[in-house]
Amino acid sequence: MNTYGKLFRITTFGESHGPAIGVVIDGCPAGLAIDENFIQTELDRRKPGQSKITTQRKEDDTFNILSGVFEGKTTGAPIAIVIDNQDQRSKDYSHLEKTFRPSHADYTYEAKYGLRDYRGGGRSSARETAARVAAGAIAKLLLRKESINVQAYVSRVGDIQAPAYTTLDLSKTEDYIVRCPHPETAEKMIALIDETRLNRDTIGGVITCVINNTPTGLGEPVFDKLHAELGKAMLSINAVKGFEYGSGFEGTKLTGSQHNDEFVNKGGTIKTKTNHSGGIQGGISNGEDIYFNVAFKPVATIMQDQQSVDNEGNEVTVSGKGRHDPCVVPRAVPIVEAMAVLVLADFLLRAKVSRI
Amino acid sequence: MNTYGKLFRITTFGESHGPAIGVVIDGCPAGLAIDENFIQTELDRRKPGQSKITTQRKEDDTFNILSGVFEGKTTGAPIAIVIDNQDQRSKDYSHLEKTFRPSHADYTYEAKYGLRDYRGGGRSSARETAARVAAGAIAKLLLRKESINVQAYVSRVGDIQAPAYTTLDLSKTEDYIVRCPHPETAEKMIALIDETRLNRDTIGGVITCVINNTPTGLGEPVFDKLHAELGKAMLSINAVKGFEYGSGFEGTKLTGSQHNDEFVNKGGTIKTKTNHSGGIQGGISNGEDIYFNVAFKPVATIMQDQQSVDNEGNEVTVSGKGRHDPCVVPRAVPIVEAMAVLVLADFLLRAKVSRI
Amino acid sequence: MNTYGKLFRITTFGESHGPAIGVVIDGCPAGLAIDENFIQTELDRRKPGQSKITTQRKEDDTFNILSGVFEGKTTGAPIAIVIDNQDQRSKDYSHLEKTFRPSHADYTYEAKYGLRDYRGGGRSSARETAARVAAGAIAKLLLRKESINVQAYVSRVGDIQAPAYTTLDLSKTEDYIVRCPHPETAEKMIALIDETRLNRDTIGGVITCVINNTPTGLGEPVFDKLHAELGKAMLSINAVKGFEYGSGFEGTKLTGSQHNDEFVNKGGTIKTKTNHSGGIQGGISNGEDIYFNVAFKPVATIMQDQQSVDNEGNEVTVSGKGRHDPCVVPRAVPIVEAMAVLVLADFLLRAKVSRI
Amino acid sequence: MNTYGKLFRITTFGESHGPAIGVVIDGCPAGLAIDENFIQTELDRRKPGQSKITTQRKEDDTFNILSGVFEGKTTGAPIAIVIDNQDQRSKDYSHLEKTFRPSHADYTYEAKYGLRDYRGGGRSSARETAARVAAGAIAKLLLRKESINVQAYVSRVGDIQAPAYTTLDLSKTEDYIVRCPHPETAEKMIALIDETRLNRDTIGGVITCVINNTPTGLGEPVFDKLHAELGKAMLSINAVKGFEYGSGFEGTKLTGSQHNDEFVNKGGTIKTKTNHSGGIQGGISNGEDIYFNVAFKPVATIMQDQQSVDNEGNEVTVSGKGRHDPCVVPRAVPIVEAMAVLVLADFLLRAKVSRI
Repeated sequence: MNTYGKLFRITTFGESHGPAIGVVIDGCPAGLAIDENFIQTELDRRKPGQSKITTQRKEDDTFNILSGVFEGKTTGAPIAIVIDNQDQRSKDYSHLEKTFRPSHADYTYEAKYGLRDYRGGGRSSARETAARVAAGAIAKLLLRKESINVQAYVSRVGDIQAPAYTTLDLSKTEDYIVRCPHPETAEKMIALIDETRLNRDTIGGVITCVINNTPTGLGEPVFDKLHAELGKAMLSINAVKGFEYGSGFEGTKLTGSQHNDEFVNKGGTIKTKTNHSGGIQGGISNGEDIYFNVAFKPVATIMQDQQSVDNEGNEVTVSGKGRHDPCVVPRAVPIVEAMAVLVLADFLLRAKVSRI
Repeated sequence: MNTYGKLFRITTFGESHGPAIGVVIDGCPAGLAIDENFIQTELDRRKPGQSKITTQRKEDDTFNILSGVFEGKTTGAPIAIVIDNQDQRSKDYSHLEKTFRPSHADYTYEAKYGLRDYRGGGRSSARETAARVAAGAIAKLLLRKESINVQAYVSRVGDIQAPAYTTLDLSKTEDYIVRCPHPETAEKMIALIDETRLNRDTIGGVITCVINNTPTGLGEPVFDKLHAELGKAMLSINAVKGFEYGSGFEGTKLTGSQHNDEFVNKGGTIKTKTNHSGGIQGGISNGEDIYFNVAFKPVATIMQDQQSVDNEGNEVTVSGKGRHDPCVVPRAVPIVEAMAVLVLADFLLRAKVSRI
Repeated sequence: MNTYGKLFRITTFGESHGPAIGVVIDGCPAGLAIDENFIQTELDRRKPGQSKITTQRKEDDTFNILSGVFEGKTTGAPIAIVIDNQDQRSKDYSHLEKTFRPSHADYTYEAKYGLRDYRGGGRSSARETAARVAAGAIAKLLLRKESINVQAYVSRVGDIQAPAYTTLDLSKTEDYIVRCPHPETAEKMIALIDETRLNRDTIGGVITCVINNTPTGLGEPVFDKLHAELGKAMLSINAVKGFEYGSGFEGTKLTGSQHNDEFVNKGGTIKTKTNHSGGIQGGISNGEDIYFNVAFKPVATIMQDQQSVDNEGNEVTVSGKGRHDPCVVPRAVPIVEAMAVLVLADFLLRAKVSRI
Repeated sequence: MNTYGKLFRITTFGESHGPAIGVVIDGCPAGLAIDENFIQTELDRRKPGQSKITTQRKEDDTFNILSGVFEGKTTGAPIAIVIDNQDQRSKDYSHLEKTFRPSHADYTYEAKYGLRDYRGGGRSSARETAARVAAGAIAKLLLRKESINVQAYVSRVGDIQAPAYTTLDLSKTEDYIVRCPHPETAEKMIALIDETRLNRDTIGGVITCVINNTPTGLGEPVFDKLHAELGKAMLSINAVKGFEYGSGFEGTKLTGSQHNDEFVNKGGTIKTKTNHSGGIQGGISNGEDIYFNVAFKPVATIMQDQQSVDNEGNEVTVSGKGRHDPCVVPRAVPIVEAMAVLVLADFLLRAKVSRI
């Protein structure tokens, strides 16, 4: 199932080394002005080779809109966006044809489908997320009209943890190549990533995402709770191993009297004193900040020899090759934002039919 | 959206104090023998009043199958199950009509829908999960035919943590009222829950779920990854704040060389040496144990006075009343299992069309 | 798939001789006043035994709303309605256990599912349509708020054809037991049905449905065109063999210059001079009357001996028994209306997100 | 909603005069050999300019597969196919910017979306059906593995009617430019189309589609009956006004004793003596021939002046321009087949989970 969303729906397609990847966005309301530069800016935040701590592989993710936009505005028709793959046939991937790389999807794809596109991960490659970022850019344009603001940043690399988001200026995130808007922490994170890269290894981390100015009423009980969809959306991103919102796993250690968010009347608006709820109660947004953490495992491709087996069960050695990210979280920040805005755009439309 | 699943689909309905709750299961294959006693056993694991550490409220969750089963077998038609609510009109809930209880869904439901069934939580009540457990029982019967085994247990209450699941005998879980199959830990958990109850407070915790004997090939890239659907399913349960699978949040601190699961050939079967992947790679099951953690916040209803506001913005005091659970996790174990098997049953059917 | 609709969704369940049939309506906006008497009135229009030209079987289709309505209004939660089957165990259906009745679903259900509920048609019985009528009554209440008016009537029985709908007073339909609001035609239709019944036979017919006061903009290109969904909805009713809208099959004999509907400005509103389009252009309503025809085959149960085979391939004689309708169209009028309003209610909600 | 199908799903995109049209096919099982020549052959059957009785406009519908196929076989990943539009910017469509052409979708698209791509029909153009034909070609390859055979032909143009399908050799359909495999009728149809073209007019017609060798068990009660989905699929094709299967509208004039299809045992296989049911009973295929008729209205674009209004309500004259089809049915034959096979492919997959 390569479609996500109920009303604002995206369908992505494409393999890492096929001719192109892309996305069809269906259900975007008509009349939305499309800023193509903004889409490119978002793609550039995700692209490889953007800084010294990412892969040095160069890909210029330029896109074409094939449909759904006329004279600069959406028409209500599906919006197809295609991003060509560059040099997709230049490399030799035959060494991967039969080998199952550890902690990649090689084995499971072959077990499920009976065959696989073994060129660089094929459909399971994180390259697919570029299509999500392009679609997310359009969702962001829709959310801007409602002044909803979605900002993600790197809150942890390995065991280097940034302070709580409430103490940070998230508008500065892009000033740091590691995308953590806290100077001292950012410096340490960069040092750890550099060290890891020199060790021919990789390291995991956590991205925190904060949504301000969300209206009340987003989320659909009982299965499509706002945090349940955010969770699914985040867990659908490559390398993600966990999701928590509001007080999360730590909050389970609290008592109810510590954890409950009392309501107060602030100048005519109902607010909560604390926000352990993370802006969501009963699966529906309550107007407070929504915040959540997304756990990313260390990248599976390492520049070291590893033991594995091939598709005939023979023992083989997998040797790391190519240029890969020592830590995926800096480049994953726009992907987390993209999936978050896609969820919100969908719920924003769904909320329009909640009452007569 | 009160429907979950693509092929094995459930639609739940009902409020805590309406005439009944229930579920329609659509897409269950024909020919499955239905053991009604087993469904009752599962409902009994969830029902209130089952032990001294749960709410002492008594509800006898008996059910009726209205359709879809003929001469003891499923026919392929939708299976409707109804569980009557007992004494649903006996209580006076008028004190809740205008008040927004802290960290409940009162405020968000009213903000979203413009009105709400204020009797004991209405649709947002965890009573709805009884319908999920009934449906889950049928999914379990389906999974049994494939010998897939799903077992959840309480792995943490407050900060009392059980040892790793690999050291436990999960078949003993039901022997402990707290549903933690480790005697010393169970004792401490029960003591903590007792103490919390005496303090008129509540406490959170974590449930771990382990799935053995899963076939390879379950899960659908790229959005309906197996862990993404498990995550959504768990996060859709009342009070859940987080989900992690395999190495989870802790695994993000590891390096790739520590974290990768090398493949080995064990007597002709491809297995992994370690299982940081939690049985899922690229969103598809690889045949190893699937395991994940689900975080539950402390129950919001506490036997203490709390400050809040009413729906006109006036300050009010909410006083705890009635008989509620001091800790929800023991009774949530069958709910976690139910949602897990519903996800698996759906993917099991979906996997039947992966290849020609 | 026992669910219909994208936003205003119904899921029906139940067999003709199980304990009950019913429907869950999900996605009905909150705040709609529910008139239970109106639901009963609609069910009574469909029920058996209502006149001398229908089956004389008596069923009193009383219903219970189990959820989703609080203090007389919808809450946004799913609305479950259950209609008990009366005396469902009183009859002996063992003669049908192995026999495939001609032009019934006995053979295909057994071929598909490997077993079947052979009691009176089971899931394939038209009794299921009572659930649709109950749900349709709620959709009608929603459409009333938009002043959309849906009226069906019997336009043909056998080869007795009523005049064009534009010459009829559709508000009089219920005055005639055959539900054709044209006195001379109604009389002839009744005579033909009577004669057919005396011949121990059955006869087919056509229902025409007219929708006035539809807003522009209903229908979703390219697959969910308004007439495509109306067509599917009608074809999903038992015994329906065809659907045409606007000029229909006859219109294919016209030339473009005869068939095109020229636009005119009538006092500031854009209208069409003629309405061969049947109120739908490009799959979207244009504000003119929507009208369509639905073809019903003769009822398959006849009071005559017929040759057939049993499930072991042996030749058997099927003898007609019981009390059945000699012509189904009079009782099918409320079913056609119900499916039409369910389609419109869904598109009305979907249209709310067409533009920013 | 530009997606069709539940398991074998297509999403089309593109406008008649945008850069390209295309389709994403999701859910095609892995391992299917893709014959690109066959896809081209199917597109060529639909393309303009193929004979003297179609539009003389030349479009060379060549396609590119962007994903989902590796080394000649499907991988289980979504298959994206793009067909570039040729010379899409060469024409001046400004005369259509404000004018609503009679019986086109200009008015309804503008009413629904507030704006429209006015270049040659935009999204509402029948050019979109090329994407369906490309997807249908892949579905045909899947059905071939089950030996299911789908053949459509022109059975009526204006009032010139071909004999019943059972008397025709459908394998000869492509030998006639009008795609009617009955020499005398084909000749008359061609003459009528020629005459109509000389009159600067257009004419409607009917396509009949016959499906042989269908397995039993396709179709899903109660809403997704096989004929209901076939009906929706056909009605979603541009210019279609009606659908009937089996005995259709005429069959409603018969009595039950005339209409019922008695079962017989033919050498161990259960067959029916007659086939008024059109191969479908209770919404499920019974193994007999499936046959249905699809009504196409005359093409709305005529080479004559017509009165209309513009989007400010002013009276305007619309003058026919360009090269258009005098009769759409010959070119619509592959489109009807494409939609039929897409429905069948979907149900074939869905049938795999009907029983344990």
